[in-house]
Formats: sequence, C-alpha cells, structure tokens
Amino acid sequence: MYRTNTCGELRLADVGKKVTLAGWIQRSRKMGGMTFVDLRDRFGITQLVFNQETNAELCEQANHLGREFVIQITGRVAERSNKNTHIETGEIEILVDELKVLNEAKTPPFTIEDNTDGGDDIRMKYRYLDLRRANVRANLELRHKMAFEVRSYLDKLGFLEVETPVLIGSTPEGARDFVVPSRMNPGQFYALPQSPQTLKQLLMVSGFDRYFQIVKCFRDEDLRADRQPEFTQIDCEMSFVEQEDVLNTFEGLTKHLFKTLKSIEFDKPFIKMTWEDAMKYYGSDKPDMRFDMKFVELKEVVSGRDFIVFDSAEYVGGICAPQSAVYTRKQLDELTDFVKRPQIGAKGLVYIRCNEDGTLKSSVDKFYSEDDLKRIADECKANPGDLILILAGEKRKTQKALCELRLEMGERLGLRDKNVFAPLWVVDFPLFEWDDETERFYAMHHPFTSPKPEDIELLDTNPGAVRANAYDMVINGVELGGGSIRIHDSELQSKMFKLLGFTQEQAQAQFGFLMNAFKYGAPPHGGLAYGLDRFVAIFAGLDSIRDCIAFPKNTSGRDVMLDAPTKISDEQLEELHLKVEIKNPE
Amino acid sequence: MYRTNTCGELRLADVGKKVTLAGWIQRSRKMGGMTFVDLRDRFGITQLVFNQETNAELCEQANHLGREFVIQITGRVAERSNKNTHIETGEIEILVDELKVLNEAKTPPFTIEDNTDGGDDIRMKYRYLDLRRANVRANLELRHKMAFEVRSYLDKLGFLEVETPVLIGSTPEGARDFVVPSRMNPGQFYALPQSPQTLKQLLMVSGFDRYFQIVKCFRDEDLRADRQPEFTQIDCEMSFVEQEDVLNTFEGLTKHLFKTLKSIEFDKPFIKMTWEDAMKYYGSDKPDMRFDMKFVELKEVVSGRDFIVFDSAEYVGGICAPQSAVYTRKQLDELTDFVKRPQIGAKGLVYIRCNEDGTLKSSVDKFYSEDDLKRIADECKANPGDLILILAGEKRKTQKALCELRLEMGERLGLRDKNVFAPLWVVDFPLFEWDDETERFYAMHHPFTSPKPEDIELLDTNPGAVRANAYDMVINGVELGGGSIRIHDSELQSKMFKLLGFTQEQAQAQFGFLMNAFKYGAPPHGGLAYGLDRFVAIFAGLDSIRDCIAFPKNTSGRDVMLDAPTKISDEQLEELHLKVEIKNPE
Repeated sequence: MYRTNTCGELRLADVGKKVTLAGWIQRSRKMGGMTFVDLRDRFGITQLVFNQETNAELCEQANHLGREFVIQITGRVAERSNKNTHIETGEIEILVDELKVLNEAKTPPFTIEDNTDGGDDIRMKYRYLDLRRANVRANLELRHKMAFEVRSYLDKLGFLEVETPVLIGSTPEGARDFVVPSRMNPGQFYALPQSPQTLKQLLMVSGFDRYFQIVKCFRDEDLRADRQPEFTQIDCEMSFVEQEDVLNTFEGLTKHLFKTLKSIEFDKPFIKMTWEDAMKYYGSDKPDMRFDMKFVELKEVVSGRDFIVFDSAEYVGGICAPQSAVYTRKQLDELTDFVKRPQIGAKGLVYIRCNEDGTLKSSVDKFYSEDDLKRIADECKANPGDLILILAGEKRKTQKALCELRLEMGERLGLRDKNVFAPLWVVDFPLFEWDDETERFYAMHHPFTSPKPEDIELLDTNPGAVRANAYDMVINGVELGGGSIRIHDSELQSKMFKLLGFTQEQAQAQFGFLMNAFKYGAPPHGGLAYGLDRFVAIFAGLDSIRDCIAFPKNTSGRDVMLDAPTKISDEQLEELHLKVEIKNPE
Repeated sequence: MYRTNTCGELRLADVGKKVTLAGWIQRSRKMGGMTFVDLRDRFGITQLVFNQETNAELCEQANHLGREFVIQITGRVAERSNKNTHIETGEIEILVDELKVLNEAKTPPFTIEDNTDGGDDIRMKYRYLDLRRANVRANLELRHKMAFEVRSYLDKLGFLEVETPVLIGSTPEGARDFVVPSRMNPGQFYALPQSPQTLKQLLMVSGFDRYFQIVKCFRDEDLRADRQPEFTQIDCEMSFVEQEDVLNTFEGLTKHLFKTLKSIEFDKPFIKMTWEDAMKYYGSDKPDMRFDMKFVELKEVVSGRDFIVFDSAEYVGGICAPQSAVYTRKQLDELTDFVKRPQIGAKGLVYIRCNEDGTLKSSVDKFYSEDDLKRIADECKANPGDLILILAGEKRKTQKALCELRLEMGERLGLRDKNVFAPLWVVDFPLFEWDDETERFYAMHHPFTSPKPEDIELLDTNPGAVRANAYDMVINGVELGGGSIRIHDSELQSKMFKLLGFTQEQAQAQFGFLMNAFKYGAPPHGGLAYGLDRFVAIFAGLDSIRDCIAFPKNTSGRDVMLDAPTKISDEQLEELHLKVEIKNPE
C-alpha cells in the first residue's frame, strides 16, 4: 500500500500519528515561510504543510508541484490553528517529512472543481478528468449505492438476479435494434436487447418465480432529448401475482431507496391515479404532483356568451395559479408567448385576475360580466389574489398545452423543488391505441399486456374502452418505470392478436418462441422495469441522465473520449461477410 | 396473490391452517380412493391429497391433471402418516378443498427431473423447460448468490461498481471483436468490449480508487472447448496498491465466497507459486493442487545407460503415482495409449513398478539395473506399492504431456474430488513471450503490465527473463482470474513499447486515449478480473460453464431457443449502410 490512510479519514484524534498519504494536488499556496497543499483523493481532502524553516529543500520541492500531480507524503498529523469547518478533515493538517512525486501531470484543460470552467464538449473529451470533480463522482457513487440497495432489497424478497443474453434475435416491433453481424453464421445478425421482456417471461415459464436484473439495454434511436443508445434498466418479473402485488412490492422498493439514500420516509401509500384522471386533471400520463393546480373544465360555464373562441372549442380548461393576480401585463404576455410557441401550439391565452379586493379582471371582459367571471372563478375555486389561466381548442391538444402551462407556472412559483419528491402510480392505461392512419388498434404496451378482468367483455364490443392491467411509476413528472400484468391464458392471447390484426401465422412468426413456451404451463405473471439512469438522475437532482453515466455518448451516438464508433478494416468486414455501402442522402 | 404460501414452506407447525398454493404438477398417483399430487414451485414440493370419498368430483378433476399443469389449490394442512424425510415439507400434506387450473400444459419433450431423459440439443431448444429442473435452477441460484456476495464484500471495502459502456471502440490487439454498425455514423462500427480493461484504468486516472463491475464481455472466437461468445467478468481495479495488496484483497473475497456459499473455511493463506515452479513441478501455469504427484526431473539420473530415448531427450521427467504398482499390463497400455493421443503427443511411456516386496520392475529393465532403478525410485521418493511414470523429449512439450498424465492419474486415483478445493496464486509470470515466427517479443498479458521492480534493469540486457507483476488465481486446475499491477510511469511505458517493437506513432494510434489520460496524473494501480461463469461452475461442480448460464449459445454461437442470429431485412441493412456479401469458402 502506498498509504496508511485516505485523504478523508484523519481527525483530531489522530494528532501525533505518523501517516503516509497519497493523492492528487488540488491546489497549493505559499504563505510566508510555509507552503500549504490540499491533497485530494476520492475520500476527501487533507491539508499538507511544508515549512521553509524546518526543511527548506522539501519546501522548495513542494513549491514546484503542479495541480493534479500525484504524490505520496509521509508526515505527522497536527492540529490546525486555522480550522476549516467545511471539510471533515478540517481540524488537522500533516506536517510533511517526506515527499515523493508518483506521477507528474500536464495542466488540465479545465479546472477540477465543482464549478468548472470547462464546456460540455471538452469535459466529454476528457471525461476521465471530469470524473475527478467531486460532484460528478458523487452521482456515480449514488448510482453504485442505488444499484446495491435495489439488489439487497430484492434479494431479501427472494428475487433472483438472472443474466439474460446480450446477443439475441431481432424483434420486429418496437424501436430500432442495434445489430451484430455473426461471423460464424454468414449473412445473419444478432440484435442487442431493447429490454429482456420476452426472456424474463420465459423465466417465469421456467418457474423462477421472482426475477430481477440490472441490465444494459439498447435502442438505435435518434438521440433527441435526454436519451442514450445504451441505458440501464432495473428489470423485474413475478409469478402468481396480481397488479396490487406488483405495485406493493415496488412501492416498497422505492420507499426503501428514498429512506436509505435520501433519508426521506413516506409514511402513506403512494397516490394511485387512473390514466383517465391523469389526462383529465393534468393533461399528462406523468403528472408532476409536487403541486396541485388541477385542470378545471370550463366549457359549460363559459359557453353561450358569444365568445366564439370558447363556443367553438371542443375543450375549454383552466388552471388557477395561486397568488399570481399581481402578474403584470408583461408577465402575462410572456405566458401568452410561451403557450403560442410551436412546441406547445396554443392559439392564445385567456386570463382572469382575482384581485385581493374581490374584483375580477379578465382579458375577455367584453364577453363576460363580473357575474360570469365570478362563476368561472368559483368553478376554479379561486381565492382572492389568484390568477386563472384558460386555454381552449381541440381537447387532447389543449390539455397538452395546458399541461405545459401548468408546469411553467409551477416552475415560476417555485413549486418544483428538486428536493421535494411526489411519487405516483398511474394505473388503468388503455389497452389499445387506435391509429387513424392504418385504421387499426395497436397495443399501448405490448401484445402480452393483460386487460383488466372486468373489462374483458368489452374486447368484443368496444375495444377502445378496454383498460389494461398496466401501470407506471411517476415521480415529479418523470416516468421512472412501468409494467403490466401479462396474459397467461392462451384463448385471451388469441383474441388479443386477432384484435391487433394479426393472423395466426403472423403471430407465430413474430412471437412464436414465447407462444410455444406458454403451451407448457405458464403461470400468471407480471412485472415492471425502472430506468436506472432516470432514477439516479432524479435522486441526484440532475437535469440530464448523462451526468450519472460514467462514459456517456453525445447526441450523434459518439463516445468522443474513445472516438467511437470508427471504421474497421477490410479484412474484418470480409470476415463478417459485409460490405459498406454509403448512399448519398437523397 | 395467488397463494398464501410457497410449495416449500409449510411444516408440522402449520397443521390445521387453511392455505392456498399455486405451482406446477410434478407428478400424481392414484392409490385406492386417494389421488396424491406433488405440487412444485421454485421453493419446494408439497403433497396434495384429493379424497374420492369426501369430494368425488374434485378427485375426478384431479385425476385429469397432466404433468406441468399450473394449478391453484386451497386446502387444509395435515400431518402425513407416511412421512417423506427427503424433502423439507415431507411431514405435511394438503387436504384439498378447491382446485383451479390456471394453465394447462402440453407434455414436455423431456422429463422435468434432476436426471432427465432429454439430450443436450432438445434441452437447449426448450431451455425454459430445462430451467425448471431443480439442479439446473440451483446453479443459477448459486450464481445469483455469488454475484450478490461479491458485491456485498467489495462494497464493504469501499469499491464502487461503475458501469462502463458496451458500445465502445474496436481494439486492434487481442481476440476478435464483435462489432455493431452505426446507423448515425455511416461506415463506422462500435465494438463490444472483450473486457473493460482500458476503461477501468481510466477510472483510476479519474481517482475512483476502487472500482469493480460484474460485467458482460464479448469475444468473437471459434467456440471450441468451454467458451461462450458472451461471458461475465468480475472486473476490479485499485489505486495506490502493490501486488501484495491486490492478492490480499481478492484472497479475502475468495475466502468470503467459500465461507458464505460452501461453508468452507481456509484458515491458511493461499499457496503462492511462481510461474517457473508451476511449470517445473506441474508442467502447467494452472496446476491442480488437490493432489501432489510433483514432477521429478530425471535427466541426470537416467543418463549414460545407452537408452537412446532418454539420452537424446532434452528433458526426462517422472511422476510417482501412489499405490499404483498393482497396475496391470492392460492398465499400463491404456496409459501409454493416453499419452500417445495426438492431443498429448508423447512417443511412449516408461514405467517402474515399486512392488510391495521392495523389488522394482520397469519397462526398461534392458537398460537399467535394479540399482539404477533404485536410484530413480529414490529420486522420486517412491514408496513400496507406488508406480513411477516417466516421459522424455523436448522440454515444454514433455512437461505438458506429463501434466496431462498427472491429471489422468489423479482422476484414476480419485484425487480430484469436486468437493475439495485447492486454491493457489501463480505469480511472477514472464513479462514477455518470444515469438519465433515474427522474431519479436509480445506482452504476455498486455503492454501496460508492470515488470517486477527488481527486474527492471533486465529490460535492457535480457528482456526474456523479466518477470511481470502479474498473477493468476487457480483453483483445482482452473484459472479463475488474473491480473497485474499496471505501469504508471510514462518513461517505463515508452521503454515497454519500444521493446514490443512499437514506434511512437503506432503506440499513439493504438493506445492513444489511455496514454493521453496518463499524462494528467495517473496513480499507481493494478487489478484483477475473475470469470464469473467459471467461478460458479467450479463451486457447483459443473464440467461446463454452459450449465450455469440461463440462456447459453451452442458451439456455432447460436441461441437455438431464440433461433438467433437471423437474417435482417434489406431496409435495415440499407439504413446501416451495409450489404451482405457471402463469398464461398475457398
């Protein structure tokens, strides 16, 4: 060992001990005849002292140490006269007797500090230096802890972690697969899994009863927004369970993680909200529940006053922003501009100020009397000082716009605190989505998702109304995970395929191996998968999952540090029975 | 929940309780007016009783249940009159009141028993049924436990599990990479990692100090022997350590696994053997230490008796097989045939029987007097009753053959008990291997492996004699893991590259990103990687790693259950800028 202690563990009680430390030089400064060096490792920072008077040569040597040099020192622990209360080792320092430079360092291209001067691109290229920053490393420490706690919790409940293969077959539905050419099977390709969905269902057929896996998954999608081509799932499946059992199990897991990693205890069960209510009250299947500001449907109360915008709208909905009646004209214009942005697409915004003095003032005073406004305000349960914001138009589109407006107001009002967590189950998703273009139903999750038992008879009469035994866990407006109870009854499965427009042959071709397996005694089963990256990101208060991934890729799917992907040799291509053929984009 | 209890948990203390169980029908039998059904799940087997007298209809229904049907029953726990001591639930049975068939099952293509009638191929095709067999499942339960204990142990020591990317750049050295075409970067390919070697070294540069990962790795090799294209490593790296620190840490881990998973305690440190001694005494860098039978070099003692085979041989070596002087002519012929097999390649075998009466009898009596034989027997420390077996020829080849012969004799003498474990560190590997063909040195591990400090000066004068700070952990003749201390000094690294015949430009092209990273302050570091598959296999006493992998591939790299790899569509190929071009083998 190059050290007796880490840079994070010495305390007042160690004063007088002779110790050896090793680490990186965070910074050094000369003061009078002394040189002070902050020595850093993963565990902390310890102050080293070199004294011109007692050892001039050593002090001179210390004066030539650069930032990020790796050194080893031996010295005696002493009490600091000028204590630093910000760090745990701040009461001591090391009076250095021996110094050895283990490795020199070039000047880093950006400062290794929590607030660095490095831009995104340079930090990604030198990710190994970016990872030296304490706040970045903390995200990965949290990730380690979360994965560890997930495993501990599930192990205690009898779950087995089973590794499923990475080189599997291509699945015809879903997003695009990454594929891997097989040298030994010319012209054939493996696919990298988008999820171990079918394999975990096979494990249930195998009687594994409770399976989980923290597993890399892959999707070859265009990487808009916060996506990575490879991402990590906490993938779970259970046998002999109903929806309630799955929700209880994973609510338990989630509470355990909050408790052990964030010291937050939820003493009440998580809210359960139907998909229908989520859409109705929040315009989203992943509402942010840190604040209220529910949608109020106003169509009825605003109709018949010759205001054509409202009268002709399929949907009129409002939210009541607390204590915002003081909004200035300029602020209201900003909100109007916000909802009119192409991504949101509303035509305009109607407001009603509920003034503190009880008067009401709206942008549509021309059409609505004070009494009319009063009725609307009552409908919205508005208090004096509140601001009512109203959008109108085609229903789904308007709800979506109102959802964005609600989130914007939540943001402006400081109601979306990253240290507050509002978990929620969204349940009873529709089983099918109707596609106008192809004029057929598609499975909202996948074709093995079970309908709710009480809705099964609707399969024949009104498939669009059938609800699924499917559920999502949402925290602070982020979908952290989701799953469903699967169909284990072959007759019901056949009916599903029929409704989805599959012939028997098509169903067999696409899902043959799983359907065959189901013929040999499939237990009732269901499960759930969390996105680990998102889970860590929300716990760490990060805006991007990239910051909790050690070596992430950029939006072109490139690892700029490794400079991957790259060309491969002609010999390698030939061995793989491939030829590169780049067509110019039309 | 479909059950109140699993099939493995009810005991005498539960007698009288009303319970609901669910599971698979293992077998059923009619005896008089009773039908007995063994209900199975992952946790055990519980006997169900249906009584013709008390409920004829239910009993009739039970008589029609087939093997592997999935059922749910409710009934009362009763004490069995005819107890089964082989299973933990053997003292009770369930008197069934209600029966529900959850799913029917076709007759499985092989019996779901520990000793199945299914051949390898059919079991792989129906792997989900094979996994129902208790002994196969036990291997995967062991795998789960081992991975869990590895994580617990390393977490306690401050190791962080960090996920490294699966889509990385192709490495020019080592085995063949699997590659993944990039749609977004036309004509370019990712590679799947053969190991996270360079990435874990980068994490050391990042100051992560102690890293581990249980991680899938990939090698596109021809799958002779016991290899899989995807396999799992326990990959570890530590900073500020010397070889001794790494060995202590992972010896600790290994002991912990033996203790927790096999209830075996090793109170002494593992044997450390130099690579040179391993070759000299066992003819192998992974000797099976469950038994002794060391090689004895006999060249000197056998020379000068006009026996041309020995006189002309570079090497003459013998082993002394205890209590085998009784071997018949036929048995000795078998051994001779064994060593003459092409895989072993010896020209012949000389034996000396050390009879119980003190006389000696050899196959070379023509050349050697009784006194000569006595001298050889003394050299071999043979006791009366022992059999000395001697091979001669070119040194390395003969040692290798003698190694095989030793293992064969160990096997025949019952000295290779799968329940006995003999762990060993092999240390001081040579740093370089000389290749006669290309007339240059190659790195035995990889070019970042550090030479032993005391051998550094030999780099200039006798590179072939330089020993590396490299080590393997071997148990029962299986290499379970290995690693090295890495070079962190850039001057030494340059010298290494030079010795390996790299120009500066070549070194930069192949290892540029790592060499660049090392310029910014690399700590001294080293590590080790275990093969998890092999570790589980040896703990489970398996002959093949395939049996501890949930969904393994066959020797053509195919998953016969999923029928992967497969062809992909022309559209998909076009999107990937590829064309398949299969040339006929010449």
